[in-house]
Amino acid sequence: MKTAENFMRRAVELSGEYMRAGLGGPFGAIIVRGQEILAEGSNRVTSTNDPTAHAEVVVIREACRRIGSFSLAGCELYTSCEPCPMCLGAIYWSRLDRVYYANTREDAAAIGFDDDAIYREFTKPISGRSLPFIHLPLPEGQRVFKEWVDKSDRIPY
Amino acid sequence: MKTAENFMRRAVELSGEYMRAGLGGPFGAIIVRGQEILAEGSNRVTSTNDPTAHAEVVVIREACRRIGSFSLAGCELYTSCEPCPMCLGAIYWSRLDRVYYANTREDAAAIGFDDDAIYREFTKPISGRSLPFIHLPLPEGQRVFKEWVDKSDRIPY
Repeated sequence: MKTAENFMRRAVELSGEYMRAGLGGPFGAIIVRGQEILAEGSNRVTSTNDPTAHAEVVVIREACRRIGSFSLAGCELYTSCEPCPMCLGAIYWSRLDRVYYANTREDAAAIGFDDDAIYREFTKPISGRSLPFIHLPLPEGQRVFKEWVDKSDRIPY
Repeated sequence: MKTAENFMRRAVELSGEYMRAGLGGPFGAIIVRGQEILAEGSNRVTSTNDPTAHAEVVVIREACRRIGSFSLAGCELYTSCEPCPMCLGAIYWSRLDRVYYANTREDAAAIGFDDDAIYREFTKPISGRSLPFIHLPLPEGQRVFKEWVDKSDRIPY
């Protein structure tokens, strides 16, 4: 019988292994269903030139590929560090049941990662963000949304 | 000379085209550098079984692939709808200069998308979230972070 600590140890192990191999930052994650590890992942931002390739996004994509579904309901995520805002969003969209994390966002900030700074952007009104966001509405945009509502064969997610 | 409105029109056009083709939700995005469209993307969640395949993530990954870099500094994003929290995080990580959006998160909520509900989760303390997050620190996790700091050939991102 594997415990939560056993699973977390594996996530942390991956964070070290792939960092040492030069694949990316020191982050690892696994997705577990019952007692089975469905998928393993690690950060690959710099080796794949993909700023979205954080361990959590990598492992969510891989677990979904394996089970052939865009929902991970019934599964749990173990991640070596508290998820950044992008990964937190991905976790909600993937409908995971529970998240275990080891290091915190403050630990990540202390070694030079922007997670905490990006979290702070979320608490600001759009006009106060460090990155300019410009609202440019078009009537066509509203029409496409209306079309989605009327689409009889749409697949909700 | 193309205007911001021209570029937005293309993003909205993609949102409709790919939705009608059954690829996913009604969302499209493009990345522009100067007057050039670097990449185009659309939502593909349901057709690729990838809950992270929102238009913005798709187009960021594609633009990075094309230019061979994990940074999109100097580029701008046009998206048919205000980015969800996952995409907002991805936008910060990719170092884009500016974001233009047409429909709003309220428009998305009105046609059944969870963006707004997920944004509200970000304003809560971890213990108050609808999804359980469990802190399970391990000494090994701290050691890996220390190793990153000491790694002479690390690539920051």
